Amino acid sequence: MSQLSTKHLLGIKDLTPEDLHLIFQTADQFKEVINRPIKKVPSLRDITIANVFFENSTRTRLSFELAEKRLSADVVNFSAGNSSVKKGETLLDTVNNILSMKVDMVVMRHASPGAPHFLSKHIDANIVNAGDGTHEHPTQALLDTFSIREKLGDVAGKKVCLFGDIVHSRVALSNIFALKKLGAEVMVCGPKTLLPKYVESLGVKVELDVRKALQWCDVANVLRIQLERQQLKYFPSLREYSQYYGINKGLLDSLDKEIVIMHPGPINRGVELNSDVADSDAAIILDQVENGVAVRMAVLYLLAGAGA
Amino acid sequence: MSQLSTKHLLGIKDLTPEDLHLIFQTADQFKEVINRPIKKVPSLRDITIANVFFENSTRTRLSFELAEKRLSADVVNFSAGNSSVKKGETLLDTVNNILSMKVDMVVMRHASPGAPHFLSKHIDANIVNAGDGTHEHPTQALLDTFSIREKLGDVAGKKVCLFGDIVHSRVALSNIFALKKLGAEVMVCGPKTLLPKYVESLGVKVELDVRKALQWCDVANVLRIQLERQQLKYFPSLREYSQYYGINKGLLDSLDKEIVIMHPGPINRGVELNSDVADSDAAIILDQVENGVAVRMAVLYLLAGAGA
Amino acid sequence: MSQLSTKHLLGIKDLTPEDLHLIFQTADQFKEVINRPIKKVPSLRDITIANVFFENSTRTRLSFELAEKRLSADVVNFSAGNSSVKKGETLLDTVNNILSMKVDMVVMRHASPGAPHFLSKHIDANIVNAGDGTHEHPTQALLDTFSIREKLGDVAGKKVCLFGDIVHSRVALSNIFALKKLGAEVMVCGPKTLLPKYVESLGVKVELDVRKALQWCDVANVLRIQLERQQLKYFPSLREYSQYYGINKGLLDSLDKEIVIMHPGPINRGVELNSDVADSDAAIILDQVENGVAVRMAVLYLLAGAGA
Repeated sequence: MSQLSTKHLLGIKDLTPEDLHLIFQTADQFKEVINRPIKKVPSLRDITIANVFFENSTRTRLSFELAEKRLSADVVNFSAGNSSVKKGETLLDTVNNILSMKVDMVVMRHASPGAPHFLSKHIDANIVNAGDGTHEHPTQALLDTFSIREKLGDVAGKKVCLFGDIVHSRVALSNIFALKKLGAEVMVCGPKTLLPKYVESLGVKVELDVRKALQWCDVANVLRIQLERQQLKYFPSLREYSQYYGINKGLLDSLDKEIVIMHPGPINRGVELNSDVADSDAAIILDQVENGVAVRMAVLYLLAGAGA
Repeated sequence: MSQLSTKHLLGIKDLTPEDLHLIFQTADQFKEVINRPIKKVPSLRDITIANVFFENSTRTRLSFELAEKRLSADVVNFSAGNSSVKKGETLLDTVNNILSMKVDMVVMRHASPGAPHFLSKHIDANIVNAGDGTHEHPTQALLDTFSIREKLGDVAGKKVCLFGDIVHSRVALSNIFALKKLGAEVMVCGPKTLLPKYVESLGVKVELDVRKALQWCDVANVLRIQLERQQLKYFPSLREYSQYYGINKGLLDSLDKEIVIMHPGPINRGVELNSDVADSDAAIILDQVENGVAVRMAVLYLLAGAGA
Repeated sequence: MSQLSTKHLLGIKDLTPEDLHLIFQTADQFKEVINRPIKKVPSLRDITIANVFFENSTRTRLSFELAEKRLSADVVNFSAGNSSVKKGETLLDTVNNILSMKVDMVVMRHASPGAPHFLSKHIDANIVNAGDGTHEHPTQALLDTFSIREKLGDVAGKKVCLFGDIVHSRVALSNIFALKKLGAEVMVCGPKTLLPKYVESLGVKVELDVRKALQWCDVANVLRIQLERQQLKYFPSLREYSQYYGINKGLLDSLDKEIVIMHPGPINRGVELNSDVADSDAAIILDQVENGVAVRMAVLYLLAGAGA
């Protein structure tokens, strides 16, 4: 088994556990590459990749761009701010135009859930979903589970709790799919207003009390409170959130065990996570970022068929 | 004859028919290149090209950037949004600054008609006009006529009608020049308010009735209704435009012949062109996009003197 | 002595005169390189550089990007407009994220004085300050003094006057440091409202009369009047500034000697500098721009340790 079961990475939902393991094994090798003095391999030398971002995401775009460059791909960036999208062009026309310029792969971020899935039915090039609205963000879940595997040896059997704004988070849904497929137990914890109704149907435990959730889990993946959505009525205030759900050293010290702390970034220090935790040895937040490049290299490499 | 008669590509107006044929023959070769697994040639390896866009144009910029990268040029992008232009710098100072950094060629889009022509009198580097206001957009006309030649074997003797917003379109003027130089018969068709007064003086037929125009032509080049200029008073409403000038399958089926459908993009589906036409076999719209890269490679290559 | 005394370029203040001479000697060689037909060297082939611009600066970013590409570095651009900064991330988190993606050097522009100095205490990668608020802009001062050295043979003993908006200018402070370290005599000249109070404590002469200042100096470095700050109350109007402080040919002709005219750009023609001076043989303004690429190559090369 040296190929993915899919030609696109639309979401974790479509992947098999074997796909996940293959991506991890490939990422292991690329992680070695990016830690060498010479961080480049010629694997995708004849491949052109367009990063098509209809929503801004500097962090994700940068990680993909570095992954692509380290694979020696040709890279072009397309962002919606400057684009013909504003001139009334359809998504399919925009992407077909880019592909007609002989682009081989499209990494796409879009505000609408399902946008890359729709595209995949109409175009031939490989598509990597870099986030579709509040739906999926598969490479984030891959780098998160890769980081758990790296830290704890395996994901299977581990107890992982996602904290915070689950309902607005594409990170949460993709993580839940990946963790379940890899055999982890999954819990979500946060104020009821931030937990989606469907979450229990995914085989996920729900806990409203932070201390109980922390006591239960081996890994706490603390999601970002999205400051920019504060105007939403059902939201607890940031002060309230921080007081009742913020994770700090005192809280962790009160547990009778050590847990691994993760965060997809950007962190709101003092809101969902205190600096005494974010900067502690328990946190693997910057490892996640580093692993992001290796995992994305693996995905691009495998989709390009170079792993055949 | 293996060199252009000019060191800049300012407009089609300045080119000889021999220039056009030389560009086409060179583009033939580059079209082969970009359809090979290895899409790159080292032709411009020691050349630095700046894409200087004082107006946004993702589509055109992307096509140029891919053309440049496939020629192995070094590419830097400069866009006015971030630029010293806003700080009161003159156009000539901005470009002289870029050139002092040892840039060899400038691909420029500017809102003002004649801006690249002005520059060409004061600077030494090769300039490619990527659109100057409503004046010229020479590489668009080159890719359009190249696409007609590819589809029909030759441009000479063909009947080509440009439909729609002629008065605001740099595409129209450049196309008229190119088509006439190549020996085509040219017509424009649209509501009177969108036809410039000077057009007949260019040796172009005028037709207000879409059906008659379609009946006359071998090729219909359907221009974009510029939604963003809808506020203009003399504009028919989009509903009116679509009803009286929109091209759909029913209209084409009512003709006693087949015609080639072109569009420079981005398409307003359901306004100037219906999907049943845009997605039909009559349309060569995505071929135009593909040919755009090959034609731009040819122009850059020839201007760089590599063809000497 | 073939290494800088510092691993970062935060400001001229931290450099020794030996550092400055080493940078100049290295830039001499790179100036030859960028004037060859083949403008590239493989020196930084395995180095990844992120240009992290929290403030727009097309001119400086472009110069750094070309310097990096000519050294064969891998280059990624990060601009704050699209960034997680807006989502409430701290500066240190943002930069640590970028570095976790295995970036070796950070070129940074930031609106806050001291931002790169703060960073340098917390991160390991080399930092190049590309301007921190009104504080320092060291590579500008390096290219300015390099250009004086090139034109006049040496900086030591020369009389250099900075004209105009000293108080809002990072260029001024860095130039004063560099000129003093290299043994030049330094004067500032402008309306009192644009001269900072501390300037005499730096060993700099102050002159309010333009003609007297011009008569005194060998080199006039005319700074930009920052149009975008016109709303400031203490500012003379542009008309007043131009009338009493603008430098024109008549003024220069009335001197009994020739002086060298410099400007960091972008020029406000007709305000601080008339075209009859800016475009005259006395001006070395475009040489400054060219030298900027060579000097930045030298800085990046030396910081990367390649000069060891």
